[in-house]
Amino acid sequence: MRRILIIGSGKSTSYLLKYLLDKASLESLFITVADIHIEQAVQLIGNNPNAEAIQLDISNDALRTNLIKNADIVVSMLPAHLHIEIAKDCIRFEKHLVTASYVSAEMQLLDEDAKAKGLIFLNEIGVDPGLDHMSAMQILDRLRSEGAEINTFESYTGGLIAPESDDNLWHYKFTWNPRNVVLAGQGAAAKFLDEGSIKYMAYNQLFKQTKPLQIDNFGDFEVYANRDSLKYKAIYGLKNIKTLYRGTIRRAGFCKAWDVFVSLGMTDDSYTIEDSEHMSYRDFTNAYLPYHNTNTIEEKLRHQLKINDENLWNKLLELDLFNANKRVKLKNATPAQILQKILSEPWSLSQYDKDMVVMYHKFGYKRHDTSHQTNASMVILGETQTFTAMAKTVGLPVAIATLAILNGKITSPGVQIPIAKNIYQPILEELQQYGIIFQEKEIF
Amino acid sequence: MRRILIIGSGKSTSYLLKYLLDKASLESLFITVADIHIEQAVQLIGNNPNAEAIQLDISNDALRTNLIKNADIVVSMLPAHLHIEIAKDCIRFEKHLVTASYVSAEMQLLDEDAKAKGLIFLNEIGVDPGLDHMSAMQILDRLRSEGAEINTFESYTGGLIAPESDDNLWHYKFTWNPRNVVLAGQGAAAKFLDEGSIKYMAYNQLFKQTKPLQIDNFGDFEVYANRDSLKYKAIYGLKNIKTLYRGTIRRAGFCKAWDVFVSLGMTDDSYTIEDSEHMSYRDFTNAYLPYHNTNTIEEKLRHQLKINDENLWNKLLELDLFNANKRVKLKNATPAQILQKILSEPWSLSQYDKDMVVMYHKFGYKRHDTSHQTNASMVILGETQTFTAMAKTVGLPVAIATLAILNGKITSPGVQIPIAKNIYQPILEELQQYGIIFQEKEIF
Repeated sequence: MRRILIIGSGKSTSYLLKYLLDKASLESLFITVADIHIEQAVQLIGNNPNAEAIQLDISNDALRTNLIKNADIVVSMLPAHLHIEIAKDCIRFEKHLVTASYVSAEMQLLDEDAKAKGLIFLNEIGVDPGLDHMSAMQILDRLRSEGAEINTFESYTGGLIAPESDDNLWHYKFTWNPRNVVLAGQGAAAKFLDEGSIKYMAYNQLFKQTKPLQIDNFGDFEVYANRDSLKYKAIYGLKNIKTLYRGTIRRAGFCKAWDVFVSLGMTDDSYTIEDSEHMSYRDFTNAYLPYHNTNTIEEKLRHQLKINDENLWNKLLELDLFNANKRVKLKNATPAQILQKILSEPWSLSQYDKDMVVMYHKFGYKRHDTSHQTNASMVILGETQTFTAMAKTVGLPVAIATLAILNGKITSPGVQIPIAKNIYQPILEELQQYGIIFQEKEIF
Repeated sequence: MRRILIIGSGKSTSYLLKYLLDKASLESLFITVADIHIEQAVQLIGNNPNAEAIQLDISNDALRTNLIKNADIVVSMLPAHLHIEIAKDCIRFEKHLVTASYVSAEMQLLDEDAKAKGLIFLNEIGVDPGLDHMSAMQILDRLRSEGAEINTFESYTGGLIAPESDDNLWHYKFTWNPRNVVLAGQGAAAKFLDEGSIKYMAYNQLFKQTKPLQIDNFGDFEVYANRDSLKYKAIYGLKNIKTLYRGTIRRAGFCKAWDVFVSLGMTDDSYTIEDSEHMSYRDFTNAYLPYHNTNTIEEKLRHQLKINDENLWNKLLELDLFNANKRVKLKNATPAQILQKILSEPWSLSQYDKDMVVMYHKFGYKRHDTSHQTNASMVILGETQTFTAMAKTVGLPVAIATLAILNGKITSPGVQIPIAKNIYQPILEELQQYGIIFQEKEIF
């Protein structure tokens, strides 16, 4: 029996656990899921004798270290900032570690210790980061082996709603963490490479300056820039890259409407609104508009932001932003918290809603003095509210990598991400069995 | 001999010191100016036997406490965050203290100690804060004593360039701290009261949503909102106020053009630009605009921000924003630092330039069931580059208050600001002798 410890039971537990349970007998696995909330895990495990769910408060050092000590490999699905304690335990008790999160500076510091003890600390093995790395590197490595000189790399990902459940004007619902959606893009300007020059894009331009995207059979999308695309030059070895851009996918028309909230300041999380508890949604909207003795709040908003696009305007109406009867009911709330509350109703998933994960890469390159462009796209649809596309694209790569480490198929020790061929190749191959497949298209 | 210690010799030392030197014999004063840089003070003192300039690094505890111990009253003209050490020394050695800065939370904590020892800690006695408090409270108190119910109070201040030196398209030069001008308005949204409702205005709306202002003989201005106007409700006792707004004055047309920098993100101080040192001004501008294979940078900027106002466009041209030969020459600079550098040449004061301080209050009120409006405005012109309007309006109130405390004309102890009649009345009266006079005008 090899013992797998999964700490943290979140939205992507479904596929992660199902994959391991399905292989448990054949591969002699025993899986322990540990979290404060274990209802979902208990349900997924059912009567399976190869798994258990244990309630764990991760600040409980005795129980946590005992669980880790008894495991052969640890998977941390906790929020990113909580990995480090687990990682230190893994060093101490000499256990491999898998996470789907970005490598933090603190995590990176453990590289030497992990190498010295022969431990594999594999991070960024979810969807984004994760699938994006693996699928991009697979094509980049292949093109380079064929003599291509890569000059353009663009990579977009989005968590969206499946076409069959797409029933609002924004073509969007919260399929993952709503707070991250509301705060997306804040902080320092986005930076990327555009035909050889570094470009900076401020938050208040981010949703105004989008790129269009079309995907066969799925229609029109648009993309806004992620925070820092420049660092991928080194990560992907894109030495002579001229254009390097990573972005987030939304349905066409989303960003210009979202920019209304950015422009008014409704996504700000840095101060609280006075008496937010008793405000109506209409009061909240009016707090960002000047007094006028005859114009309505609707008229004031249209005037201030010069809105003459009826599609955009109807998106705002759909959200109940002007409703005088709905109350915020949040004490000392920031604008971002209030906006999230307003969006939570129209954008919540109903029982039969299915989600969709879209990923798209664009590769521009020269080979034998001619220019080429190849695109690769992936669209994954959710099956149920538990077995979502997001859970699948995060959970399966984590699960496959975990078993691959246990089975000695991934061997190089240290803190790492899945950009080496010997890691991404077998994982991508196995993912195809689950329908996680990229469609490649040579444009010219 | 009464000993006055002035710590910090900045731009407002000229009038502050001149006032005290002029009264030194008659009033038996000996004035010590202490700072790291004492050149200006040395020059202003000349052969006057009633004053001295001493070089002081304020982290030199021995020298600093010795100077404070020997003084009868201390004036701190240091940057606001440096007052607190001086203030604690003043408690310890039982000295009165005068500053022109906002009362910090730390300063407020000394109120009890100051009162227990009978010490006067008078703050916010410059121009803004300072003259604004005194002139507003004088009119508010008078109106209220006449039975007025105040429903509107707006108060604007601006440090500008005198009409005779107004020779650029922005009608603006740096007459005070350029960094503060570049960063103005950042952080949490501005908040104010507008006809009974609290309004929030995000940074990216601040320079778009201005109020027009006309002043007799001086023409057209405009006003953008200051950070927090709400707190003045309590400070000025404006119980039933419906509209409460404080703002900063610029010449008409300035704000819409400044908003170009805000929109692009050029005022951001939170990250550094790569290779800023070798960038040309044109490169810097281009870093905020997308690549285009035929359009010029000028065309890209006009297109992106939809600029069709030629006056605004000419303002941008005037700043050399598109100059490919001028280099930034600042290592690891933030956008805000680079913008300040670009502005520093066209907006620097030349030898004979004179500045201008403008202050304006609007009072709306009801008396005997009829509505009234009274405005009060003050325009002060600088005399030289040393004896500026800014130095006068900051330095003279500080100087007059300092002598008034020494002479026992201000007696109430504690941490305070000049909103009590017994403080503002004699100071405003004396300021009139120096031409600091408000013109009142009943509108209806």
